[in-house]
Amino acid sequence: MNASAELRTVPELIAHKRDGGELTDVELRSLVNRYATGELPDYQMAALAMAVFFRGMTPRETTAYTLAMRDSGRVMDLSAIPGKKVDKHSTGGVGDKISLSLAPIVAACGVPVPMMAGRGLGHTGGTLDKLEAIPGFHVDLTRKQFQRQLAKLGCAIIGQTAALAPADKRLYALRDVTATIESVPLITGSILSKKLAEGLDGLVMDVKVGRGAFMKNVDDARVLAKSLVRVGRGAGKDVRALLTRMDDPLGKMIGNALEVREAFLTLRGEGPADLLDLTLALGVEMLQLGGVAKGRADAERQLRAVMRDGKAVALAEKMVRAQGGDPRVVSEPDRLPSSEHRVVIKAQKPGFVQAVDALELGLVGVSLGAGRTTTDDVVDPRVGIELAVSVTEHVNVGQPLAYLHVNERKGHTQHVARVRDAFVLGPKPATRQPMVIERITR
Amino acid sequence: MNASAELRTVPELIAHKRDGGELTDVELRSLVNRYATGELPDYQMAALAMAVFFRGMTPRETTAYTLAMRDSGRVMDLSAIPGKKVDKHSTGGVGDKISLSLAPIVAACGVPVPMMAGRGLGHTGGTLDKLEAIPGFHVDLTRKQFQRQLAKLGCAIIGQTAALAPADKRLYALRDVTATIESVPLITGSILSKKLAEGLDGLVMDVKVGRGAFMKNVDDARVLAKSLVRVGRGAGKDVRALLTRMDDPLGKMIGNALEVREAFLTLRGEGPADLLDLTLALGVEMLQLGGVAKGRADAERQLRAVMRDGKAVALAEKMVRAQGGDPRVVSEPDRLPSSEHRVVIKAQKPGFVQAVDALELGLVGVSLGAGRTTTDDVVDPRVGIELAVSVTEHVNVGQPLAYLHVNERKGHTQHVARVRDAFVLGPKPATRQPMVIERITR
Repeated sequence: MNASAELRTVPELIAHKRDGGELTDVELRSLVNRYATGELPDYQMAALAMAVFFRGMTPRETTAYTLAMRDSGRVMDLSAIPGKKVDKHSTGGVGDKISLSLAPIVAACGVPVPMMAGRGLGHTGGTLDKLEAIPGFHVDLTRKQFQRQLAKLGCAIIGQTAALAPADKRLYALRDVTATIESVPLITGSILSKKLAEGLDGLVMDVKVGRGAFMKNVDDARVLAKSLVRVGRGAGKDVRALLTRMDDPLGKMIGNALEVREAFLTLRGEGPADLLDLTLALGVEMLQLGGVAKGRADAERQLRAVMRDGKAVALAEKMVRAQGGDPRVVSEPDRLPSSEHRVVIKAQKPGFVQAVDALELGLVGVSLGAGRTTTDDVVDPRVGIELAVSVTEHVNVGQPLAYLHVNERKGHTQHVARVRDAFVLGPKPATRQPMVIERITR
Repeated sequence: MNASAELRTVPELIAHKRDGGELTDVELRSLVNRYATGELPDYQMAALAMAVFFRGMTPRETTAYTLAMRDSGRVMDLSAIPGKKVDKHSTGGVGDKISLSLAPIVAACGVPVPMMAGRGLGHTGGTLDKLEAIPGFHVDLTRKQFQRQLAKLGCAIIGQTAALAPADKRLYALRDVTATIESVPLITGSILSKKLAEGLDGLVMDVKVGRGAFMKNVDDARVLAKSLVRVGRGAGKDVRALLTRMDDPLGKMIGNALEVREAFLTLRGEGPADLLDLTLALGVEMLQLGGVAKGRADAERQLRAVMRDGKAVALAEKMVRAQGGDPRVVSEPDRLPSSEHRVVIKAQKPGFVQAVDALELGLVGVSLGAGRTTTDDVVDPRVGIELAVSVTEHVNVGQPLAYLHVNERKGHTQHVARVRDAFVLGPKPATRQPMVIERITR
């Protein structure tokens, strides 16, 4: 009997990966399918995930694995909607409210944006939590409602439906409790399986790098970005990635209602420069993938035009109304929920802001109730942190560094100290770094 | 709040080990205890085991882990029985029936041998399966029966009770299906947790090396042996290890009743030379650990004496009777069950036997029904393989190489071919290597 002609058992497949071997497409698909049905137990998948953590996967393996994850559930067919459907996905940061304005801006330029977003976990926020700060807004559209809205308006932002890549849902929860999150092929599979199941044509990945990001250095982020681009291409989709800076928080607001408020400024081309810069950079890629721009300069011109002429605001209002929210919040942000109190945090020494620790502020935000420690936590849309100054700006002693938006005036001694310590002050003005570190297209 | 003062979560402990960190005694004990109670799920233990596979454990960690595994169940107290209690444990080989004769021989020299043995799995046999080939013999004594027999006769061979190191029982089953068996610290913990729970004073480890063994090369075997000795010492026990050769089968018999028959020859100092050599080598260590010998030469003299004067045979008979078997089998081996047929396998070319592939013969043995593929398999005591010649001997064309002991005459074409191919013949006599490769005492 020829052993090589037989199917390997699951322990043999785990041992093969453990010892640095490559799994075949058929083997990976079989593992994922059996895991999705519950036939393959969590303990074998956990051992395999840890072996992958140490041994990695080849590009071919990562692609086969991602496609198998995608095919574990429904793959949406958006071909009835004209034009190239393009989405954007961020690996997660602090103060990252880009999607809220980017989706209507890009859609206003004629590129349909079928956006499926996530919730916050740990120090990073989630687009769904932010949208739900808008009274009445709901993110749980049915597939039909989603497609109808996309056809009519050109954009919709909803939560992942359970039917999409269910193997990833199960595996992500397992990886979270078995210390197997930090693996490039597994991250690639998790992100792309869901995105590919959306039925999109192009995808722009915002791979964040720095203190407040999952990837702490450019080299690691580049490896992930290249993996995403390569596997996306392997699946027949146009995928590009920008490596973007996430040392300091993005914008000046951290917390759900606060971030919605700030995001809506960007719809008009207003608000913090870093937010606007990154929105434009990602929008340029999306317009190019959508095939509606003649080059990058033309793409940027179109984006700026819809911000200026009110089309982005109008589309955002339509999207909010279509998803059950009060569209007036887009122009009247005081209609958003707000906290009972604002606690000022003052500088105890003078100086120029050199850096603001995004990770620490993200964690303080979670502690205030703006985010989650576990997926079961309920977020408070009202609370958060507002930066009074950001990198390059100057403060004198006694001037505000930031404000806590909270519902109880007392009990924030530690929060105040942590936020104050998150500001690094120095004698000379710091140079603001460009938001985009690198562009990865292959 | 100082994070380092807090208890780390299980995912944090797994990540710490994954990233090359060291776990504290308290952390290891907590993990093992929670696993033993079922509070820690299999999937987290599987991920941890795979991380340990890649990162290893320090000697301190391995000792703490082993002691925690030991303490997951009852630890036997044999202090009421006079003398130093000494056991022998083998890492498993093909044709390894040493325990069956070694226990009564050593006990006949005055060293109590409280032996807890295992069953065969894969290509290696198990002492319990062999003993159960003796009609009526039972290995499931209660703790009290075991201690009473040990006090009265000086030896007893039984199976592991469920109360001993239950965490290991659960973990070994998990490791078996998650490709995490091959890890020196985990093997050390598995072997020693059970042995330390027996309440012994000294232990001789027979660490087998070669084609038919778990450890394929001397370097790996030495690492395991040193780990066993070091951790045993850390637990306050006198542990020594011999690295012994397991390229060819031990003795000429493979199969349960066949091996019992061969083992009883050794009780009289008869039978194959390799079996006798290894029995003496291990016995010398046990007598020294038992404190009954003045040096190694005296130990060997005592062992040879009880073989010659019938004390070893008499003790074996008493042990068999005490455990429900027919004591006459010791001197009248035809009372053992035997197969219906003997199929001769003849040499197709002449030559001196250079090597006999122990692994292959072990696997053929399993295929004949002498061993197990899974723990649920039932073994047939009658079947097996009898070598007609072994290494250094000469055969001419048509002379027997071996015999299959089987119950159906037909259907053994593949078995015959595999056994024949397991014999490597050459033009010149091979040199027989000494059984003991190395002695590890620290």
